[in-house]
Amino acid sequence: MDQLISDLGQIVGPRHVLTGTDMARYSSDWLHQYQWQPRAIIRPATTEQVSEVVKLANRLKIPLVPMGGNTGLAGGTCGEAALVLSLERMAAIREIRPKSKVAIVEAGVILSNLHAAADAEDLLFPLTFGARGSATLGGVLSTNAGGSNVLRYGNTRDLCLGLEVVLPNGEIMNLMSELHKDNSGYNLKHLMIGAEGTLGIITAAVMKLQAKPKVYATAMIATTSLASALTLLNDLQHATGGAVEAFEYMPGFYMEQHQKLFPNARQPFAQVHDTNILVELASTSADLAAQDVTGQPKLMQHFETLLAAHLETGAILDAVVAQNQAQRVAFWERREQAAEVTASHPRLVNNDIALPLESVAAFLDQMKTRLAEIDPQAAALVVSHLGDGNVHYAVWPASHDKAVQDDIMEAVEDVTLSMGGSFSAEHGIGLTKLPSMRRRKNKAALQVMRAIKHSLDPNNIMNPGKVVPAAD
Amino acid sequence: MDQLISDLGQIVGPRHVLTGTDMARYSSDWLHQYQWQPRAIIRPATTEQVSEVVKLANRLKIPLVPMGGNTGLAGGTCGEAALVLSLERMAAIREIRPKSKVAIVEAGVILSNLHAAADAEDLLFPLTFGARGSATLGGVLSTNAGGSNVLRYGNTRDLCLGLEVVLPNGEIMNLMSELHKDNSGYNLKHLMIGAEGTLGIITAAVMKLQAKPKVYATAMIATTSLASALTLLNDLQHATGGAVEAFEYMPGFYMEQHQKLFPNARQPFAQVHDTNILVELASTSADLAAQDVTGQPKLMQHFETLLAAHLETGAILDAVVAQNQAQRVAFWERREQAAEVTASHPRLVNNDIALPLESVAAFLDQMKTRLAEIDPQAAALVVSHLGDGNVHYAVWPASHDKAVQDDIMEAVEDVTLSMGGSFSAEHGIGLTKLPSMRRRKNKAALQVMRAIKHSLDPNNIMNPGKVVPAAD
Repeated sequence: MDQLISDLGQIVGPRHVLTGTDMARYSSDWLHQYQWQPRAIIRPATTEQVSEVVKLANRLKIPLVPMGGNTGLAGGTCGEAALVLSLERMAAIREIRPKSKVAIVEAGVILSNLHAAADAEDLLFPLTFGARGSATLGGVLSTNAGGSNVLRYGNTRDLCLGLEVVLPNGEIMNLMSELHKDNSGYNLKHLMIGAEGTLGIITAAVMKLQAKPKVYATAMIATTSLASALTLLNDLQHATGGAVEAFEYMPGFYMEQHQKLFPNARQPFAQVHDTNILVELASTSADLAAQDVTGQPKLMQHFETLLAAHLETGAILDAVVAQNQAQRVAFWERREQAAEVTASHPRLVNNDIALPLESVAAFLDQMKTRLAEIDPQAAALVVSHLGDGNVHYAVWPASHDKAVQDDIMEAVEDVTLSMGGSFSAEHGIGLTKLPSMRRRKNKAALQVMRAIKHSLDPNNIMNPGKVVPAAD
Repeated sequence: MDQLISDLGQIVGPRHVLTGTDMARYSSDWLHQYQWQPRAIIRPATTEQVSEVVKLANRLKIPLVPMGGNTGLAGGTCGEAALVLSLERMAAIREIRPKSKVAIVEAGVILSNLHAAADAEDLLFPLTFGARGSATLGGVLSTNAGGSNVLRYGNTRDLCLGLEVVLPNGEIMNLMSELHKDNSGYNLKHLMIGAEGTLGIITAAVMKLQAKPKVYATAMIATTSLASALTLLNDLQHATGGAVEAFEYMPGFYMEQHQKLFPNARQPFAQVHDTNILVELASTSADLAAQDVTGQPKLMQHFETLLAAHLETGAILDAVVAQNQAQRVAFWERREQAAEVTASHPRLVNNDIALPLESVAAFLDQMKTRLAEIDPQAAALVVSHLGDGNVHYAVWPASHDKAVQDDIMEAVEDVTLSMGGSFSAEHGIGLTKLPSMRRRKNKAALQVMRAIKHSLDPNNIMNPGKVVPAAD
């Protein structure tokens, strides 16, 4: 047996060093955009084992690629000839402190397990998206994942109070604070969050929990336009003091394609509308949860009053309010199956962009024209966290020509950046967006990123070739 | 004339290079803890001028110290033999976009000017503290200032969407995004915020604005203990869906010392209580702002009902609700004059610590014992943002012995860190807390900070000797 494999076995136990066909499920990404051949899979059980593995890899200058649930969409876990370090055995929720509203978790904890554990204490961990049954805390921290509740609760980085990180030299950096104010030096927590494992391996974290809402109100709404939808969002926020948890846009084409893939899903409306919004309100206020004589919570009354007013003016074309949890779940399933719908076409130019809210409509208009010029038969499959300006603008190209597909990508970036947007909103850079980073990121910022990467990882062992494009 | 002064004059105009006695007001800190002799004061008007000045300083390896309102409490602007770069002429609020709720500001904008500009658009910039009439946006960003509304709105970093920074090599790094999701590479914005000018000079920023509350309710409350106060805080948050904007603790000794310094201030209570809380609720909800038949907003009704319940159980000893804006202002003045009260004693061991909320009482108890052992006649002047666990634990030592004063500082750090707290909450490190950084900061984190500092500023020109202690 190879000396490296034997040394790794000494650290984590021989059973937890996988080679050969055992590596299959660690050797491609969820979308099957990438396949790779790792050197071995290492499954440490403790931070100290991670530290030992990193020290060994650093001494031998062997690439290390950390992996959580492997649900990323940007190829960030691609590990050709690398040691893939899976955090799956470090899956303990070490502690939940209800009074302080914090959870202390290991990196391998699956997101939906943290949801359940918080719920059992009558608390909420708000970060959520379709892949929550597989995605891990280490992964969502490393990519600063977003999802549907960012509007109300922020991105992953806004929900993290403290981190433990194994640095590229194998040292353990303990920043496991649960404080809301801590100005003791540079904010290395925020530097590590979203770095996709290129500056170190996140092994544990202190996450913020929230008071669990006492009442929800969820609806599917069809509006005349995106402008009408944004007016509705503003009115809802004002009337409820900021109770909107999610405001998700699904165009008619998305609704149709979803129906094709999931023919048993029940349609919310009798006809297909252009502008469909899934809106959810929630409140922890006892007052808004209190029921009136008809048994309806006050939040729901406010909601229905406002919807009625917008129906009256004609800004809303149709609205269906979820009457029970099953209906609410059905509304959410349609939205959360976006990854499956997006992947249901053989060719894909995937984009995950962010725009100023009021520019989303103009972006879609301009792209319609640009797309017709570049690839007239291409279709845009759009779904959007409209409340925070994040648009998943996937293009299904008709053309098989890679050059045409690149032109589509560049057109999306052109229009996005002309409106002050970002070519990467919540999926991260990984491999997929490296060309965009090179083309589009501020040059001074790229130099700073390279300098930091080199200073912390001089041997370039930590997830090499991701996030930071090499200098020209 | 010296060649350097002449070259600087070429960049910013000779009138804006100050030397000799013109440097007086840039040559000590607000607390007069530090005095220094700068080489010159430079007052650029544009980011390009800042860039040219930095390039010149970097070429000549001359230290550069950026300065905003110079209201810092940790000696961060101390610039012996340095070029002090004052941002005071870069004071334009470039734009306020009410629809997007953002303000685009230059670094020299005074905090209270941004308050006024936001208010004129019916919006709120929530960051506030006593020095708001002098402190600048560049300064609050560089120190990640906190203040009284962090509980509701977060620290300065939570209110910043984008930054423009002149790097130590003079390059301009444009990160002026106004997006709520942006995962395009390492988060350099959060690295620069709180770095106190050691990694670059913040020249402009995109700041988040908030909906302006439609209704406020403010009171001074005396409780039986800190535990009763925290129970009240929890109850208020639950009843109102998180409407508590501020929850400020002032012990009886603080009330007495404030009265000595400001004898005309009207006392809230007939007697001196041990545990006094300034609490403020606010809401943007039309529902909570609506008045009942007596003309009282519903938020105030909720508040008074809850206070009555706690008076009934005996947890609250006394409560005075502000009946008008003048009363509200008077309550706040007492709290915001803390810096003056703290500085009113000839000797001071100043501490700005953060603790888990439920540990604040135990901290104060333990310190009482420790202080009695170290310096029996010393007094602790405490004021605290209790809602976020930040305690300004100033000690007025009786002893003139520097060694005794150092022992007090170390005792505060010992007790703080034993409870999972931080030795620096919101004032930053500057010079004052450098020994604490060296003693108390995680060693791996210190190494990372040094590596980053060296990689971005190899000539060590940017606010040298601050924040990052030299290697042992």
